[in-house]
Amino acid sequence: MVAQLEHNVVSGTQVKPVNQVHLYTFDSLPLQRGGYIAPVTVAYETWGNLNAAGDNAVLITHALTGSSHAHDPEHPHDPKVAWWNPLIGPGRFFDTSRYYVICSNILGGCYGTTGPSSIDPNTGRPYGMRFPVITIRDMVEVQRGLIEHLGVRQLAMVAGGSIGGQQALEWAVAYPELVRKAIVVAATAALTAQAIAFSEVGRQAILADPLWQGGDYLPGQGPQAGLAIARMLAMITYQSEEAMELRFARSPARNQNVPSPSGFTDLGERFDVEGYLYYQGEALVKRFDANSYLYISRAMDLYDVSEGYSSIEAALSRLRSQALFVGIRSDFLFPAARVRWLADRVRAVGGNATYVELDSPHGHDAFLKEWQQMTDALNLLKE
Amino acid sequence: MVAQLEHNVVSGTQVKPVNQVHLYTFDSLPLQRGGYIAPVTVAYETWGNLNAAGDNAVLITHALTGSSHAHDPEHPHDPKVAWWNPLIGPGRFFDTSRYYVICSNILGGCYGTTGPSSIDPNTGRPYGMRFPVITIRDMVEVQRGLIEHLGVRQLAMVAGGSIGGQQALEWAVAYPELVRKAIVVAATAALTAQAIAFSEVGRQAILADPLWQGGDYLPGQGPQAGLAIARMLAMITYQSEEAMELRFARSPARNQNVPSPSGFTDLGERFDVEGYLYYQGEALVKRFDANSYLYISRAMDLYDVSEGYSSIEAALSRLRSQALFVGIRSDFLFPAARVRWLADRVRAVGGNATYVELDSPHGHDAFLKEWQQMTDALNLLKE
Repeated sequence: MVAQLEHNVVSGTQVKPVNQVHLYTFDSLPLQRGGYIAPVTVAYETWGNLNAAGDNAVLITHALTGSSHAHDPEHPHDPKVAWWNPLIGPGRFFDTSRYYVICSNILGGCYGTTGPSSIDPNTGRPYGMRFPVITIRDMVEVQRGLIEHLGVRQLAMVAGGSIGGQQALEWAVAYPELVRKAIVVAATAALTAQAIAFSEVGRQAILADPLWQGGDYLPGQGPQAGLAIARMLAMITYQSEEAMELRFARSPARNQNVPSPSGFTDLGERFDVEGYLYYQGEALVKRFDANSYLYISRAMDLYDVSEGYSSIEAALSRLRSQALFVGIRSDFLFPAARVRWLADRVRAVGGNATYVELDSPHGHDAFLKEWQQMTDALNLLKE
Repeated sequence: MVAQLEHNVVSGTQVKPVNQVHLYTFDSLPLQRGGYIAPVTVAYETWGNLNAAGDNAVLITHALTGSSHAHDPEHPHDPKVAWWNPLIGPGRFFDTSRYYVICSNILGGCYGTTGPSSIDPNTGRPYGMRFPVITIRDMVEVQRGLIEHLGVRQLAMVAGGSIGGQQALEWAVAYPELVRKAIVVAATAALTAQAIAFSEVGRQAILADPLWQGGDYLPGQGPQAGLAIARMLAMITYQSEEAMELRFARSPARNQNVPSPSGFTDLGERFDVEGYLYYQGEALVKRFDANSYLYISRAMDLYDVSEGYSSIEAALSRLRSQALFVGIRSDFLFPAARVRWLADRVRAVGGNATYVELDSPHGHDAFLKEWQQMTDALNLLKE
């Protein structure tokens, strides 16, 4: 991978304008499942400074619809402004006075890194569904190209939750010598059949929307209803029965005016949980690309840490990192028992793995909500 | 309610031809949420004979997409032919040599009972979305009209699972003097926010399908993709992570040729669970009406046993039945803990309630699969 250019500003049509987002473009990315993407641009942000040895870098990997904006120094206390804000900054676990913290938008995304909405240089039009199938390993390869470009020689830590946790795990398996500590939050060795099933229902809602147009929709004219429905379903799987009961129970909707994805009026009455899900669906439609959703969610399904190795033990025995696995009691998408199982397998093949479980009702999303428990869990890794 | 006519044959356009289905039509049904339906036809089947006292009748209530065909004397050993076949028949728990067993298609359905696909006499066209909002109580009222017509003076038992369990519970609360034993399987006092949320995602998939046409689609030209997607999601919620993992895990699809609801080809590969869900979606589209799906699933969401009473205790204290509540360990749609809670509340107000839990990995659908455990549970009620 050869660096070609680096922008300090965000390019025009493809990228939403976010402060401090840098772009790095390299020639070509060979893909795990065949083919390649050329060129590849990766959008990233950094906080703190790289040391002379190049070994104090921390790579933060984001979740499905996330972006590189894991931290916001101007609004460091607001998790709504930047998704892991309370964990990053001076004096926090990902201490920017000590570490060079990097977060890049994942391959396939729509926040600056090459994805289905990027222009295919062969056609001059967006890739759409001509974008190739991508995997977690491909996402890691893009990140590896980026950190080499940035002069990083070894990562002090790789950390992420959900698909970000899959990437952290894949980093530790693919490049054991490059990762001192791997923090895998709410991620497992591979998705369950149930999780794949939920994922596919959401994708079918997108694909069945006639405005999807085989993936060749114009910006702002895409499968809004389909994507909103997919998001509604995903939001259920990111929470838990317990959390939804605490928050919504059977209360009538506080806001009766949020349009549903279909625009159809309610049968009988509107429950609060319905109004909430309509709102969440609409919010994602405004900020996310439907084709990116298809490709990234599929990469989650396809991920199996043992892919390319003779067994899961063969894969996990490659780890040289100190590994922290964080499960969430109420997570049914990446069940805690399966996160724990993964940590146990690492230890069984001689690896250094710690398992800790967040005692939270918030389901899968707890890693974006339970700041004190997350900090306590991460502190188990302190030197 | 006045009996107007009874057919021993199935009428032409609205009803699928099923042997032994009888129709009873009465003038008008006032509805719990306002308005009325007039006339109302109810499709039903019976097995066994009513005794002279009129008190040996058993009412079986079916699940969302079910029909009156709970039992098939010609194929008594095949649960695929009739949905509660192994529990009904001579010598079985619902002993047709002893009881007069009745099962009717629910109000809003599409297997002979009046529903959105029925002809609205005011317009000469199918009701579509001009069908009024219906509730579990309305379904019970139709059944009450039917049993009166049949000469039943008291029900020896009312039994059903899922929305059928909601009806059994509602019977025991609404007409305590008419129900000697109530068997409530995999049903709770009210749906959780999570269950409502899953239900609404499925409905939005139907409503957002342009072929839905505001509900005024022609037979065979309805929202096939939307209904198939709704069914895919529902099938996940009827099973469990454990069951899907046992059955599918991450195996590649055995059948690569089942079309997905959208018709779009797979990204990367097709998992077995995906092929299975496509098949289930397609199968429902062939046999079920999308508008019926909307109305009946909504009735499940709207159900709250306390509706119309000052409290849940006030509702449950009306029971005079011997009540059996059956939970399923792995059911996440109607969680066992909530079924148990309901049984506890009945006992707390002085009622006669037994709780038993099926130790099954099959999730909500276990009441349609675990025949020995179901029989053992039912036998707790034996006189």
